[in-house]
This record gives sequence, structure tokens and C-alpha cells, in this order.
Amino acid sequence: MTLCLNRDNLQGYVTEKDLLTLKPAVEKAHQDLENGTGAGHEFTGWLTLPSEIDDGFLQEAAQLGRELQACSDCLISIGIGGSYLGIRSTIEFLRGQARIPVYYAGHNMTPDYLNALLKSLDGKDFSVIVISKSGTTTEPALAFRVIKKYMKQRYSPQEMAKRIICVTDRAKGALRQIADQNGYRSFVIPDNVGGRFSVLTPVGLIPLAAAGIDVQALVDGARAGQKEYGRMAIDENSAYQYAAVRHCLFQQGKVIEVMASFYDNLMYVNEWWKQLYGESEGKDGKGIFPASLILSTDLHSMGQLMQEGLRNMFETFIEIRHPESRVEIPRDDQDLDGFNCVAGKYLDFVNKQAYKATAAAHLEGGIPNMTITLDRADAFHLGQLYYFFEKAVAVS
Amino acid sequence: MTLCLNRDNLQGYVTEKDLLTLKPAVEKAHQDLENGTGAGHEFTGWLTLPSEIDDGFLQEAAQLGRELQACSDCLISIGIGGSYLGIRSTIEFLRGQARIPVYYAGHNMTPDYLNALLKSLDGKDFSVIVISKSGTTTEPALAFRVIKKYMKQRYSPQEMAKRIICVTDRAKGALRQIADQNGYRSFVIPDNVGGRFSVLTPVGLIPLAAAGIDVQALVDGARAGQKEYGRMAIDENSAYQYAAVRHCLFQQGKVIEVMASFYDNLMYVNEWWKQLYGESEGKDGKGIFPASLILSTDLHSMGQLMQEGLRNMFETFIEIRHPESRVEIPRDDQDLDGFNCVAGKYLDFVNKQAYKATAAAHLEGGIPNMTITLDRADAFHLGQLYYFFEKAVAVS
Repeated sequence: MTLCLNRDNLQGYVTEKDLLTLKPAVEKAHQDLENGTGAGHEFTGWLTLPSEIDDGFLQEAAQLGRELQACSDCLISIGIGGSYLGIRSTIEFLRGQARIPVYYAGHNMTPDYLNALLKSLDGKDFSVIVISKSGTTTEPALAFRVIKKYMKQRYSPQEMAKRIICVTDRAKGALRQIADQNGYRSFVIPDNVGGRFSVLTPVGLIPLAAAGIDVQALVDGARAGQKEYGRMAIDENSAYQYAAVRHCLFQQGKVIEVMASFYDNLMYVNEWWKQLYGESEGKDGKGIFPASLILSTDLHSMGQLMQEGLRNMFETFIEIRHPESRVEIPRDDQDLDGFNCVAGKYLDFVNKQAYKATAAAHLEGGIPNMTITLDRADAFHLGQLYYFFEKAVAVS
Repeated sequence: MTLCLNRDNLQGYVTEKDLLTLKPAVEKAHQDLENGTGAGHEFTGWLTLPSEIDDGFLQEAAQLGRELQACSDCLISIGIGGSYLGIRSTIEFLRGQARIPVYYAGHNMTPDYLNALLKSLDGKDFSVIVISKSGTTTEPALAFRVIKKYMKQRYSPQEMAKRIICVTDRAKGALRQIADQNGYRSFVIPDNVGGRFSVLTPVGLIPLAAAGIDVQALVDGARAGQKEYGRMAIDENSAYQYAAVRHCLFQQGKVIEVMASFYDNLMYVNEWWKQLYGESEGKDGKGIFPASLILSTDLHSMGQLMQEGLRNMFETFIEIRHPESRVEIPRDDQDLDGFNCVAGKYLDFVNKQAYKATAAAHLEGGIPNMTITLDRADAFHLGQLYYFFEKAVAVS
């Protein structure tokens, strides 16, 4: 097990017995999911998606990536919501692993943003991936129009057809027609996966592969998650434990969940999580409000509120056991700041002390909290984390 | 008046009469603030700060900026909390106005982040601004140690002394000693301004001037705010109206305030607002939870929760009347997406339609909302907005 859920800091809020009480409800939800008998069952394609992804498709995607990287200084990914956040959260989490920079468009309609983006393209070669099930969602459709117009000044129609990739519906919709009529290559968004779950469909995998991300490792991690979180028994399934804890805390009036991390590369993973949970649960006058904290910065501000504000929230930390690199704290002859006491130690040692102290202080201050620990900040573990959250929200 | 507060979408939640009922309480708070008789009065230096900033200081800061820009390809700003967010919110809001890129350090202890930062400095010249009242706050102190060690490989002690600027206490603390003993230039953080209010002190102004931002315009805007929001009468003071509305909504069980914008460059302004309000109000088991939405992206996800989730929140939009540039929506001969209906119009026209529709829909769905409109996305209006929020939170 490479992803651990630690529930020690729920003491006084959620007991093992509380979780066992929920066992029948969790098993019912599990069976409804597996048998396709629950609400929204027509959109549960994400459930078995990792194991169904064809390795041939992954190779094709990687090959497309090599081709685009060879002719492009950067990539523009046009999409909104799940078709933006899943891509960005992966790129930012895997800091520096993309072989060419990825810029985003179609997720806002701020003219200054789009103008700055176009200006940054001057003198550079680029390719475009446009993602939309219908092709008529306003923001990406208008961004695509503007970017196509700019491309026409730079590239011939043949060259544009090489550089534009569409990810859209199999048969219908405006973007499907645009792709077919202009000879743009295209990939299919499956019908049975909702936008917020789409990161492991071509919606996420095509732009990620185009940027040079190891999508095979991402999918392998999701496959490990599919196996791990496929177990029905709550005591063997940490995704179900996470879901059940959230349920118990919500019953106790904890209406806000703060996803917190001491690792800055989780910022957009938190945003991805917000869209998944906000859209899935915010219905029928219910739903925990999902919020994000990136520490230590927010510790010096929002930390105050966490410590002494309204007691209407709980917290989930995401920890990384082994960061990808190390920084040794230097000795200083003057030692005016007094930190020679940690000289020679690694920065992450101090970071982990800060996390532990914060988690303990928040519990003591009335904020129950859990911690999800990833072994490493790589594509495999991110794939597993995506699936963990998807499975948990479905049962939640 | 260049900053407007629109309260039309509070219908059914907060009336003019409700605000007038609060008039005596607001006047009491106003007088406590003015007379220095309220709680925390020793930290209200921010109140008269804009008018007290010496224009000579602003010229000195701008001159320092020209000097650093001449010898640096980029700038590293080391600080945390208010000494990070105030700088970053200004730089990002004024997209593209910084003459050299600004990188941040000391706001997290993620080793991969710091290593990536150092790697990006290879082959580039840079200067460092380190901001800390005490010099012993862990995150910036450790980042400063690591960066100094890196600098020693690149620069002589004399050259380092030219490139390191300290912003710290006048007389005491580790960073003051480090500056004095090593001959680093330094600027003073006033004793009577708390960290979260520090953006208009040297904490914010020195790094911003160093990056080439027009700090004179920023301060001029804050001065306009000081005048505008210095009025005691609530019906003449929109900062007090904002504070009073928040109070009324909190009384009605609205425990979350969502700061929302359809302009992506407000993302870090929202983060700055979160630290100001979270730290100021999160005390004694009280405090509205401040959250941020950047639209349209979040509309396709968190929008669901806003529309149909728990009715425990309200929303404040920040609008920009005139963006700094325009994008015309192109006509498309194929018109497969059907958007020729808006061809020839500006993108911001559609953006504003989206905002209006969202604000109306949220009110109808049970989310009362206000809108703060800035005339332009420039330094003057940002300075005014900073002061607006500072004054409002003090009375709130």
C-alpha cells in the first residue's frame, strides 16, 4: 500500500465503532456502484476505466506527444472545469516533468489573459489541444475561435491540421464536426464518464501525453487504486473510510472540509478535488463546502481561523513521504537566526515537523483531521490518489 | 468614485433599514478606530499609512528598483503570509507590468520547490529581497540560508551586499543584525502595522518597486481610499456598508463568504483578502470562513454547490469595468459552434453577461451577493481596493 489514510487525529469525533455502524450503508453503496443500480449509474464509466484503458492507446498517445513536441515550443490546452483542472493538477504536481510548457485557455474569458497568451506565442511554434464534449461550451469555443484566427496568420491550413488535436464526442456535437470537416485529428470522450471524473480519459491523457508526461505510470497508479479500493469491506478500504468519516463529521455540523498540504505542488490537486467534490455533493441543499489551504503560507493567516474560528470544519492533509529531491540546511558561522540547531538536517525534516505540530494543534483546537500520505510525488501515486478520491466521493 | 459596491442582489436578505440599524455600532467602531480606543489599537498604523508615506521614500524605492533591474534578470522575494501575498497579489493583478520576473521563496518548505527555483537561477543574475520582522520565522529564515549559500558560489561578498535587501525591524531581531553585520541595505517595517496589513509598508513597496511596479500609483489609490472610506456615516462609506452587510449575513447563519471573480488576475488578490479576513476575524469561536472562486472555471464545478448546496454562504464578486485590452470574437465561415451571433463583439461583453447571469442565478438559488466594481485593473485601483478591505475588516 503506497497511499495511507491516517485517522489518529479524529479522536473524540469519529470512532472505529462509528465506522462499523456505517458498514451496511457503505456495502449497499458499493453494491449499487458495482451493479449499476445507484443514482447516476449511467455515468460510472470511471469505475472500471483504469483497467479498460488499452495500452495500445497509451502508446499512441505517447507517440502523438513525441510528434507534437518535435514541432512545438509549447502546447495550448483549451478546456474548462474538469477538462482544465485534471490536466493542470497533473502537470503542476509533477513539477518539471513536462517536456514542453503547457499554457491553458478557455477556462476564463478575461481578455487581458488571452492577449498575454497570444503575445507570448510570438516567435514560438505551438500546437493546440481543444477539449469539449459538445463544442458549444462558451469559454473554450470562443478561445478556440480566437486562437484559430491567430494560427491562420502563422500556419497554412495543412500545418494547422497537424497542430490541432480535438478531444470530443464520438459522433455528435460542433467540435466533432469541426474536426471532421477540417481534417483535425481527434480522440473520443466516453459517454459514460462525467466531466469531473475525466482526467483518466483522453480528456486528461491526450494533453498530458502531448506534454511528455508518463501517462502509463499515471494509469498504472489508477489501476492499483481500482484494485485497492475495489474491496467492499470498509475496514479494508481506506477510500470508504475517508467517505464514512466525512459523513460522520458532516452529521456533527462540520460543513467545511479544508484540504491542506505543506507541499506547494498539491495546489491544483486541491482545486481538482474541489471541483470533484463540490459538483458531486452540492445538491439537494446538502454538501460539505470544499476549501484548500497551501501551507506554510496559509498557516500564518488562515491558520488563525482554523485555530480559533467557528468550529464548523474539519481538515484533510495530504503528505508526501519522500519528496523527489533534498535540500540540506546550511550551517551559518554567524548563526544570528539561531537555526544552526537544524544545520545539516534536510528541509523536509522541518517541513514534516511543522505538519505534525499543525495537525496536533488543530485537533486540540477543535478541528478533527485526517492525513493521506503518498509515498512519492510521482505519476503513479497521483493516479492512485485520483482514483481514491473518485471512489470515495461516489460512496460518500 | 472609482470603486463601487453594488448591493442589489441582497434583496430579501439585507435591507437599507438593516444597515441603518447598525449605524450607531458602525459609528462607535469608527470612533474607536480614529481615536485609538478599540481593541488592538496599537496596530492601527495602517489607518493613516497612505497619507503618511513620504513621496521621497517612493522615489528612493523606485531608484533602488532601477538599480536592481539593471543588474538582475530576476528578483527573489523571500517572505511568508502578508509578506508574500501582498506582493504576489499586486504583481499578478498588474499582469505584465513588472519589468523583471519575481520568484518567491520562504512561503513553503517544499524541497522540490526550492531546488527548482535554484536551478532556474543558473546562468541568470538576480537580486534578493528578504522580508521578516524578527528574522527568526522558520520558513523565510531557512530559505534565506539556502539562497545565501547558493549566492556565495556565484557572487563575491561585495557583490552579495549589493544584491541583498532586507526589510525588517528598525532596531531589534536577527534580520536587523544580519543586515547590519554584513552591510546589506535595509528598510524598516513599522511597529504599528500588523503583517496582514503590511502591503503598503516597505514590506510590499520595496519588492514591488524593485520589480518595476508603479508604487506611486498604488499609494495614490490607497490615499484616495483613505479619504473615501474615512467618512463616518455608513450611507456615505461603502467599506462600512460592506462590513455591515457581512455582519447581517453572518447573523443569518451565512458562515462562508465566497470572493468570486470572472477575471483570473484577481486570484491572488482573493488569497490576500483571505489572509486579511481569516486572521482578523477567526477569533473567539467566530469568523466568516473566507473562500475564493475564480470563474468561469469554478462555475462548472463549485457552481453546482453554490446553486444547490447548503444555504450557508454568501458571495462577493469583484468586477473590472474596463479591462486593459480587448479581444474581438472572430467570425467563422463554418459557424459550426453557432457563435457567429456574437462575432464582432468583444470577449469581455460575453464575460460580463456570464457574470450578470451568475449573480442573478445565485441570488435566486439562495446565495445573496454583492459586487465590488473597479474601473480598471491598474495600480491605482488596486491600492484603493486594498484600503477598502482593510478599513472594512477593522469595522467588521
